[in-house]
Amino acid sequence: MKNFQNPSAQSENPTSEIQNLPIGIFDSGVGGLTVYRALHKRLPNERFVYLGDTARVPYGTKSLATVERYAIENSQFLASRGIKMLVVACNTASALALPKIRERIGIETVGVIGPGARKAVELTKDRTNPKIGVIATEATVTSQAYSKAIKKVSPAAEIIETACPLFVSLAEENWTREPETRSIARKYLREIIERNVDALVLGCTHYPILREVIQQIVGGKVTLIDSGEATAEEVEKVLKAKNLTNCHPPRTSERRLCDDLDHFYVTDAAERFARVAERFLGVKPAKLEAIEVFGIDKLEI
Amino acid sequence: MKNFQNPSAQSENPTSEIQNLPIGIFDSGVGGLTVYRALHKRLPNERFVYLGDTARVPYGTKSLATVERYAIENSQFLASRGIKMLVVACNTASALALPKIRERIGIETVGVIGPGARKAVELTKDRTNPKIGVIATEATVTSQAYSKAIKKVSPAAEIIETACPLFVSLAEENWTREPETRSIARKYLREIIERNVDALVLGCTHYPILREVIQQIVGGKVTLIDSGEATAEEVEKVLKAKNLTNCHPPRTSERRLCDDLDHFYVTDAAERFARVAERFLGVKPAKLEAIEVFGIDKLEI
Repeated sequence: MKNFQNPSAQSENPTSEIQNLPIGIFDSGVGGLTVYRALHKRLPNERFVYLGDTARVPYGTKSLATVERYAIENSQFLASRGIKMLVVACNTASALALPKIRERIGIETVGVIGPGARKAVELTKDRTNPKIGVIATEATVTSQAYSKAIKKVSPAAEIIETACPLFVSLAEENWTREPETRSIARKYLREIIERNVDALVLGCTHYPILREVIQQIVGGKVTLIDSGEATAEEVEKVLKAKNLTNCHPPRTSERRLCDDLDHFYVTDAAERFARVAERFLGVKPAKLEAIEVFGIDKLEI
Repeated sequence: MKNFQNPSAQSENPTSEIQNLPIGIFDSGVGGLTVYRALHKRLPNERFVYLGDTARVPYGTKSLATVERYAIENSQFLASRGIKMLVVACNTASALALPKIRERIGIETVGVIGPGARKAVELTKDRTNPKIGVIATEATVTSQAYSKAIKKVSPAAEIIETACPLFVSLAEENWTREPETRSIARKYLREIIERNVDALVLGCTHYPILREVIQQIVGGKVTLIDSGEATAEEVEKVLKAKNLTNCHPPRTSERRLCDDLDHFYVTDAAERFARVAERFLGVKPAKLEAIEVFGIDKLEI
């Protein structure tokens, strides 16, 4: 891949310059926009650079080695744009590649699994025998990353993980109220319902799009955990702890989702991304660019 | 990418050696196995080398430039294995990349669009006003490749093309008899049914997996066209016309699907491929290898 320079190499810049840099976010595609939305809402003083790896989406059915490679390439691209912090919005990449990303990128990095897991435990903390459901992609479920992260803070927790492969296509089709979606959700969530979980982690960035139907199926007593929102809280904490909060923020009253303070990149099919972004967020990105993060310019083909 | 040599460069080999080479097949993933099955059934005297680009599947939501690049990389890999002929089993790659592949690969190449389109016209040829339905991925529908191919042989044909994005996930989940599948099919196929088509092209390699439910929904009078079967017929014709039929065939009685005369390659997640192959074909490939067709070894990461 291109030998991206990292203009944010944190030791060389004065603090205020670093504080004013945007926060990088990457996802395998459009799903991470739900994480962007949560970050934007909680941190209106920050700017964001989003990368959707639409040329290689989805990650949820791919192997550890491949997901790691894609995740590192994406992180390096964002680092080259000059960011003060990296958010891995993709659950699969967070589950499989976080250690490798941290090893390779000299930037504060937050994934979605840890925050989602901790939030789930927090919301069931009064119970003596917390039962937590996790729905996610095949790769995330196989990695048991959520189970491990939950057990770390609550060793007694009982965890039920289920893959819901059709949810991604249903969310991308925007079938949020169709009876077919309801029926499919009922099928996937059968064990989760039978086991009477207290909280259910939406462990894939696409799933919050189907939040309403999922809530109806599992019932109002089950607390749904959107890892995006939990991650935004975590990012806020890290910004404060590391003194990285923007000290020359834009005027909050002028901030809107997808305005020209945020920059969006995709590795393919920008038009389709804009269309789905509009479905997810109600608005198209003002600044959207198609780029290559991989080695096409070096391929001898 | 690796600078693959093409041991089958046809001008340098005596005819009999070329005839004994296998036929290359590539697809974006597992779907092309339905084309492999059709080829294997019609041409039991031939051997096959199959490449599933599982690291970058699916192609159906990606752009022209990206699909072209992936298709050329896959074709070059297969050429490097020594093949006498190339079958592009992926409808999206056939729709978008066939001219570029032919330009770059000096090997006889057959896609699935042309044969599927011609077969559809053939089966409606007695009608004065043939109406043909095509169901395919978003990219294939957008390209209008089927409409153009059908119009070439039947300028008066009326064609209705519809994208059915959820069918891919439903086929991979093996939900072939679920009521949800039936209900989704009814929704997607509404216009096709209303327009009273004579023939319906299954324009994505995953769709033959759902053949039964599709047939039930459109009714018994509509002829379903499996591009895989039409392609196998076309390949047989080309082999004969170009004098490429295997002259030292294996003993037919010993040939089984996925036996060790056929070689399968995937770019990722071989285990998942084997599992889905077993669902699609009833048997796992005897020879299955995970390889890299793209430039990872040259990336400076």
